[in-house]
Amino acid sequence: MAIQKPYIPKGTRDFSPAEMLKRNYIFDTIKKHFVRFGYQPIETPAMENLSTLIGKYGEEGDKLLFKILNSGDFLTKTSDELLAQRNSQKLTTKISEKGLRYDLTVPFARYVVQHQNEINFPFKRYQIQPVWRADRPQKGRYREFFQCDADVVGTNSMLNEVEIVQLIDGIFSDLKINVVIKLNNRKILSGIAEILGQADKIIDITVAMDKLDKIGLNNVNIELIDKGLPQTAVDQLQPIILLSGNNNEKLASLKSVLSNSEIGLKGVAEMQEIIDYLQMFDLQNEVELDLTLARGLNYYTGTIFEVKANDVQIGSICGGGRYDDLTGIFGLKDVSGVGISFGADRIFDVLNELDLYPKHQSENTKVFFVNFGKAEEIFCLPILAKLRKAGVNAEIYPEATKMKKQMKFANDKAIPFVVIIGEDEMQKGELVLKNMESGEQKFLSIEELLIFMTK
Amino acid sequence: MAIQKPYIPKGTRDFSPAEMLKRNYIFDTIKKHFVRFGYQPIETPAMENLSTLIGKYGEEGDKLLFKILNSGDFLTKTSDELLAQRNSQKLTTKISEKGLRYDLTVPFARYVVQHQNEINFPFKRYQIQPVWRADRPQKGRYREFFQCDADVVGTNSMLNEVEIVQLIDGIFSDLKINVVIKLNNRKILSGIAEILGQADKIIDITVAMDKLDKIGLNNVNIELIDKGLPQTAVDQLQPIILLSGNNNEKLASLKSVLSNSEIGLKGVAEMQEIIDYLQMFDLQNEVELDLTLARGLNYYTGTIFEVKANDVQIGSICGGGRYDDLTGIFGLKDVSGVGISFGADRIFDVLNELDLYPKHQSENTKVFFVNFGKAEEIFCLPILAKLRKAGVNAEIYPEATKMKKQMKFANDKAIPFVVIIGEDEMQKGELVLKNMESGEQKFLSIEELLIFMTK
Repeated sequence: MAIQKPYIPKGTRDFSPAEMLKRNYIFDTIKKHFVRFGYQPIETPAMENLSTLIGKYGEEGDKLLFKILNSGDFLTKTSDELLAQRNSQKLTTKISEKGLRYDLTVPFARYVVQHQNEINFPFKRYQIQPVWRADRPQKGRYREFFQCDADVVGTNSMLNEVEIVQLIDGIFSDLKINVVIKLNNRKILSGIAEILGQADKIIDITVAMDKLDKIGLNNVNIELIDKGLPQTAVDQLQPIILLSGNNNEKLASLKSVLSNSEIGLKGVAEMQEIIDYLQMFDLQNEVELDLTLARGLNYYTGTIFEVKANDVQIGSICGGGRYDDLTGIFGLKDVSGVGISFGADRIFDVLNELDLYPKHQSENTKVFFVNFGKAEEIFCLPILAKLRKAGVNAEIYPEATKMKKQMKFANDKAIPFVVIIGEDEMQKGELVLKNMESGEQKFLSIEELLIFMTK
Repeated sequence: MAIQKPYIPKGTRDFSPAEMLKRNYIFDTIKKHFVRFGYQPIETPAMENLSTLIGKYGEEGDKLLFKILNSGDFLTKTSDELLAQRNSQKLTTKISEKGLRYDLTVPFARYVVQHQNEINFPFKRYQIQPVWRADRPQKGRYREFFQCDADVVGTNSMLNEVEIVQLIDGIFSDLKINVVIKLNNRKILSGIAEILGQADKIIDITVAMDKLDKIGLNNVNIELIDKGLPQTAVDQLQPIILLSGNNNEKLASLKSVLSNSEIGLKGVAEMQEIIDYLQMFDLQNEVELDLTLARGLNYYTGTIFEVKANDVQIGSICGGGRYDDLTGIFGLKDVSGVGISFGADRIFDVLNELDLYPKHQSENTKVFFVNFGKAEEIFCLPILAKLRKAGVNAEIYPEATKMKKQMKFANDKAIPFVVIIGEDEMQKGELVLKNMESGEQKFLSIEELLIFMTK
């Protein structure tokens, strides 16, 4: 057989044990907090029917879907004429019925509609699964990556938003990442557009406002004029661009600016309710009303969330918002919800950059036994069994090879403790425990080892 | 927009929260034991290059691979002549370069070869990921299902086999499934074939021997003759068909029967070493030498494992063995290893049938607060925050709807405790805690609730 040099497809990744421990640390932390708030896991298949996926992500998104070739003799449904046309796009519909999921939102909407009669609403679900996009791979952009979403659907209560902020605060506190949790509300932005008479310019406005710190008020105003805003609208916008103070002060200003916009005032009231509730809690991270937040503007209808790490230069590491019509695309009306998505790859990078991973991960081996041969194996194995029974991750080198090689093995695997039991130790009934970090060695009885390892 | 009724592809499944809790219980239990023995997680991409996959699973397997249509204008590499041939199989190689993984073994072999310079050998890895097969769906057979594998590569020591038996015993004890752990050895089977002079009949022999209990010795012998075994070979085989006693007695008999077969004696010695070591441990499940075990015979070269549940009629729920050349297909020689695979879907069914899932899963909500309105929310939220901070999964209904509806919600979500705080309770500073299983209600202070929930 010809020898093939194997490699993985462009834009995909293997995860080594060291990377998996880090990733599991992130996912386990996030999951722990999800379930604290009553979110429940679901999983959906990697493949969805293309009829479910096509048209949900725009024309560009349709192109980025990975499509699965129909099984068997997939050409039976194609005519000679169609083949002769050599039109890949047209042919696709005849030879492919399924695609890989592109995100977790559309499969979740499909899930809610398909299982609407079994679901216990309000439905708090979380979902951590890979998604696939046939994007051009580049640094930090992969063709397979994990999304980590929590949504609650079937409820309009602002309490959900309040809990999502608590959830975000709890997760990043636990991960020891200092963040600012930014909030905005689509209705406030709509209100601003309404009073300016510039509904179509809202993106241009938020983009320009976002540059205040960098380019100054004058240049912001120039940009707004450049984008076609009339001078009167720019004048009206000044108090909003310069909005300052704490969240309550900002809301008070907005209330007066938006006094003639019903939708704007609704947005202010929603935000006020959230801010009021949040004052009850001892949050570890700052919550900031930020009118320049405009993510997913075509999609979100109420609150918008975005989380930025304070100590690292990186885009947002978490975001989400409220939507009024998740499942309308599949014919189920009036399912409002609010959701949040954690950017696992970026959080991975932040923790790496700030060196915030715990030194010893509970999933790693805690104690390693050097193997000196048959007699020592027979002496060590029952000790290993006791340790494992007591919940300690323990292993022995499977062969009696050179001690140096075994110590290197333990060191490379980042195992914190090594037990050395040779002939001497067996006779004395004593063992040597080496702390691999400090290099310190001490003599212990078997009982002392068990106590030390389980304490 | 036309309303589409959404459904998932044939042979795939959604996992509801209730199913996910059960699945996570299985996977978490298995993972816990894997790491106890020093196995480390890896993950590989869902997609592999078809060059990695094709030819590894036989002709039938190649047909069952899900193939991904190349992105963009995938017809550019095909000639008009090829299209005119309408040969799906030939066309596939031109329009598809990637496929979904079919199992975890080939990707693992690819991983070992690709990362051979970074791997810390002996490499104990586990991997729990979905695989995809374009099989005809039927009861218990899915197009997407999880495999759950642990392998150690780069070591010939029988200690690995010993630990795998301990691992299996620990996992099924923890899951409370009574099993028998069956062992065999490919070398023993080769030895038997050798002394009979019937190397090509070994499958027929094991299949016939397996029927002894059902059809009796006479019919087994008739079947052997039918399959073309000469009478002399059938005669020679009698002590092996009738092999009985405990494992040591069986091994003693085999040693004498196989005294003229070098490979057979090697197999007996390997098995003896494993059995001897296992006697040191207090295993909870029976270990049985079973010569009819012939799984993966073309693949395994030493020990073969298979696990059967005692109390349920179902195929094997776990199996594996030793292979001498995992990575040879990718050009890396002499990587011997031994591995085991747990059948998550069957274990799921066994636990369901025997009703062995823990009643209250730690990932579910433990206490639910009824929502009576704004004032009560403000009273309850700080209590919820305290509970969550103490590690208790707690939630409140997000809206003040009818109590009956809220109690039904808690009940449907299998939440064991409900807290009721209305006007009366707020005034008294006391709350009602209802046990949803017993129906019992008691009055508690907030402090008493915290103590009760965290103990």
